[in-house]
Amino acid sequence: MTKEEANGATEEEQQAQSKKALKKQQKEAEKAAKKAEKQAKLAAEQQSADEDDFAKDRYGVSAMVQSQQKPDRALVRVEDLTPQKVDQLIWLRARVHTSRAKGKQCFLVLRQQQFNVQALVAVGDRASKQMVKFAANITKESIVDVEAMVRKVEQKIESCSQQDVELHIERIFVISQAEPRLPLQLEDAVRPDGDGEEEGRATVNQDTRLDNRVIDLRLPKTTTSQAIFRLQSGVCQLFRDTLTKKGFVEIQTPKIISAASEGGANVFTVSYFKSSAYLAQSPQLYKQMCICADFDKVFCVGPVFRAEDSNTHRHLTEFVGLDIEMAFNYHYHEVIDSITDTMVQIFKGLRDNFQTEIQTVSKQFPSEPFKFLEPTLRLEYTEALAMLREAGVEMGDEDDLSTPNEKLLGRLVKEKYDTDFYVLDKYPLAVRPFYTMPDPNNPKYSNSYDMFMRGEEILSGAQRVHDPQLLTERALHHQIDLEKIKSYIDSFRYGAPPHGGGGIGLERVCMLYLGLHNVRQTSMFPRDPKRLTP
Amino acid sequence: MTKEEANGATEEEQQAQSKKALKKQQKEAEKAAKKAEKQAKLAAEQQSADEDDFAKDRYGVSAMVQSQQKPDRALVRVEDLTPQKVDQLIWLRARVHTSRAKGKQCFLVLRQQQFNVQALVAVGDRASKQMVKFAANITKESIVDVEAMVRKVEQKIESCSQQDVELHIERIFVISQAEPRLPLQLEDAVRPDGDGEEEGRATVNQDTRLDNRVIDLRLPKTTTSQAIFRLQSGVCQLFRDTLTKKGFVEIQTPKIISAASEGGANVFTVSYFKSSAYLAQSPQLYKQMCICADFDKVFCVGPVFRAEDSNTHRHLTEFVGLDIEMAFNYHYHEVIDSITDTMVQIFKGLRDNFQTEIQTVSKQFPSEPFKFLEPTLRLEYTEALAMLREAGVEMGDEDDLSTPNEKLLGRLVKEKYDTDFYVLDKYPLAVRPFYTMPDPNNPKYSNSYDMFMRGEEILSGAQRVHDPQLLTERALHHQIDLEKIKSYIDSFRYGAPPHGGGGIGLERVCMLYLGLHNVRQTSMFPRDPKRLTP
Repeated sequence: MTKEEANGATEEEQQAQSKKALKKQQKEAEKAAKKAEKQAKLAAEQQSADEDDFAKDRYGVSAMVQSQQKPDRALVRVEDLTPQKVDQLIWLRARVHTSRAKGKQCFLVLRQQQFNVQALVAVGDRASKQMVKFAANITKESIVDVEAMVRKVEQKIESCSQQDVELHIERIFVISQAEPRLPLQLEDAVRPDGDGEEEGRATVNQDTRLDNRVIDLRLPKTTTSQAIFRLQSGVCQLFRDTLTKKGFVEIQTPKIISAASEGGANVFTVSYFKSSAYLAQSPQLYKQMCICADFDKVFCVGPVFRAEDSNTHRHLTEFVGLDIEMAFNYHYHEVIDSITDTMVQIFKGLRDNFQTEIQTVSKQFPSEPFKFLEPTLRLEYTEALAMLREAGVEMGDEDDLSTPNEKLLGRLVKEKYDTDFYVLDKYPLAVRPFYTMPDPNNPKYSNSYDMFMRGEEILSGAQRVHDPQLLTERALHHQIDLEKIKSYIDSFRYGAPPHGGGGIGLERVCMLYLGLHNVRQTSMFPRDPKRLTP
Repeated sequence: MTKEEANGATEEEQQAQSKKALKKQQKEAEKAAKKAEKQAKLAAEQQSADEDDFAKDRYGVSAMVQSQQKPDRALVRVEDLTPQKVDQLIWLRARVHTSRAKGKQCFLVLRQQQFNVQALVAVGDRASKQMVKFAANITKESIVDVEAMVRKVEQKIESCSQQDVELHIERIFVISQAEPRLPLQLEDAVRPDGDGEEEGRATVNQDTRLDNRVIDLRLPKTTTSQAIFRLQSGVCQLFRDTLTKKGFVEIQTPKIISAASEGGANVFTVSYFKSSAYLAQSPQLYKQMCICADFDKVFCVGPVFRAEDSNTHRHLTEFVGLDIEMAFNYHYHEVIDSITDTMVQIFKGLRDNFQTEIQTVSKQFPSEPFKFLEPTLRLEYTEALAMLREAGVEMGDEDDLSTPNEKLLGRLVKEKYDTDFYVLDKYPLAVRPFYTMPDPNNPKYSNSYDMFMRGEEILSGAQRVHDPQLLTERALHHQIDLEKIKSYIDSFRYGAPPHGGGGIGLERVCMLYLGLHNVRQTSMFPRDPKRLTP
């Protein structure tokens, strides 16, 4: 089961392979063989062109690292190349970011993630003419091992992260060769990102990036992707750590489910042996079952799936849900308080521990620093309606908020309260799902809430109906087939504590915290109705 | 997108509802109405049967908690009911575990998760005859709020977790009523678990448990489920914390993929808008892409899917993978060392912080404490073969290990080295997937490894081929269609560091650490070819 590997094609499949496919494979094999021959020839040329080369053992293409040996050689990190290392001979593994021959010298910039350093091969007693030529011909993005003397520089090297030193290379070996032509051109990647359909700009650029995500993620000067995903990793960690401290238990919920519990719309179908199943639109049923099983407070982090044909800047068909559910004593505001405090802990953790990442992103995508209040602002729906109406919006008491009105409200709230994060409480009952607890004081409203960052929704939640009889009534009111939600309703028949919760979209939180404008920037390998690769 | 809620059935679906379904719903509604009427009648009877009842405001069925108010009332936890609380009047919310009338008294056991306490309603100046009768009739598993005086007991109450005190109830209100008949009978749940097909015992009992998971998870005396899943939550946390400290970055990888990258067998198909897609069998391609994108060291925790029709004690169709991938310098043993150290940190963390859970489980399922060495034992495949042959097993040099031989080897290793955890290194190349790096010193073997706990495999991993040319050759050797794995091979064309990793099955780690015998015990809502619910 944990075998992460399958032994290639099955026998049946092999037999089914058409002649055409076999021919294609032969052609590929011939091509590969030809290429190998050519490369061997080149290597031979490079390494033995001049048998008289005194430095010939000091450079070349290494044999593939196949774990042949365990040399006792420490590799220094680029970020550790500081003046303290001056006049030391060190080994380093890095990518060739650029290389440029200049007379008897070759200047290289060597890179590791966001750190880079200038390096130099110069004809002299450690390097031959041939060695300089070899260095100049190494393709960009290749990985090299170099032995070099760390030298202090007189003038700061402004173009590199390591500004006080440079490397005088004494040995250089290619560990992994990059193809000469990169599929993603630097000049394309430098251009400011086309933010998508809303701004009306071209999205070609972003698609090219996503098609070549491996290289896009790697280039430090042109994208901020490394920083974005390190921050995303931080959001998950802060979310979990905060909740664990509050006594929540992490649970794992199944993604393949037998019935579409929430009515059947927008759900992906899976073929499951001789029958069929669905992909879970949220872990909600399972979170609630855990509450009924006395876990008291639970959270989970995992993929959720929405078969919505929405091609917007903020919709994905698969995203990561940060989900919370908890029993409360008397009032669902206990739940709101737990969630908002968790969000505040995340915001503080990012602010305090991820400044480098935030700064890196804001260089390419400038935005105002994210503002939040303590305690979190909580507005009631009717208050929000009043603010919108004052701003000229015409809306009925029980109408849902449109996306533009949500954004407008975000601006009005920011002006009035100076916060980018707030809770909108007491939504009209009519616009919420059947399992939402009605407001005991006003049957038109409900004990439900959304949370917003920079005017966009990042969480939706509510007190749930924990009484099977009221749940049945509400389902009938929504004309939902009781047969399909039988097991859901049955969960509450053997004593169920009052409870509530919510689901947060990880990619949206990262996007809005950083002030980005497209959720594809905060999803490493985004999935939407038009994208399933890489 | 983060909307965890869908507004019931679509219009189309509503229109499509047959008359039959509508009739059914009407019937259900009538039934519900009848039941409501009956309940109302009962409540009325209970509460107003005797208008002369002096205690009539001290008990009853509460109005549903609908967040009507925010009373300033602290609820005490059962686990905090110690002699320090003696003679205090407290409020408590708990389940009725048992209730038993005895003359003018009613004895209750009140429960919160694994904690319980004895409570008493006795006719006197705080409770009437009617109130005692009411308490005696509360159905098991109902949730109640009680106000009670904490009293010291002279003799320890052996049957409860809180042995030094009991509660003298002054008020009792039902917050959520359980149906009188539980679907899972206590006597069934007490019986030792049928461990499944391997022992040849009936599995009916386990299926009943799983069908009624909410109640199964809740019962503390009869199952150890709460302890198992708290420990599972601990494994995830220890895994992530250890790797984060080592400089690994957490990544999120997509589960819906466009092509079955590992040959196409055992993969679930998803209908994706007008086309189709697959569920990822492992995050491997994405982990490797992140290494090629210079993330250096990554991990992820998430569901993986296997469409294998295996009905054994250790196979699931959906399980949680703890995945690791990292670049290394010279030798893949750097990867093995990172993984084994991570496992050792998990074992130590469980041993040091989860003793209560371990003891709870071992009461119902006795097993030897889990043993491990530091550093972890690493055996080569040829050594293992020699041990097995000495024990009478006939096996060829390049044969894979059968499950019984794995278990036998586990016993031999335990005898010789006194460890339940070890690494088996250098598997025959022939039994590993195409992307496994061949051993540079012996072409029959490979730089790959499995890890075992109590003789069962929990991880499979290897140095991966990072050279696109060798990868092409190996794929052709395995007769894999190059067209289908083009994007995979292309990932390595722009400079790829040597790297390796592995995937761990969370449920298996928990099962084997605790010495359990069925993976369904460590999956909260297990999925196998025959089970998709709840």
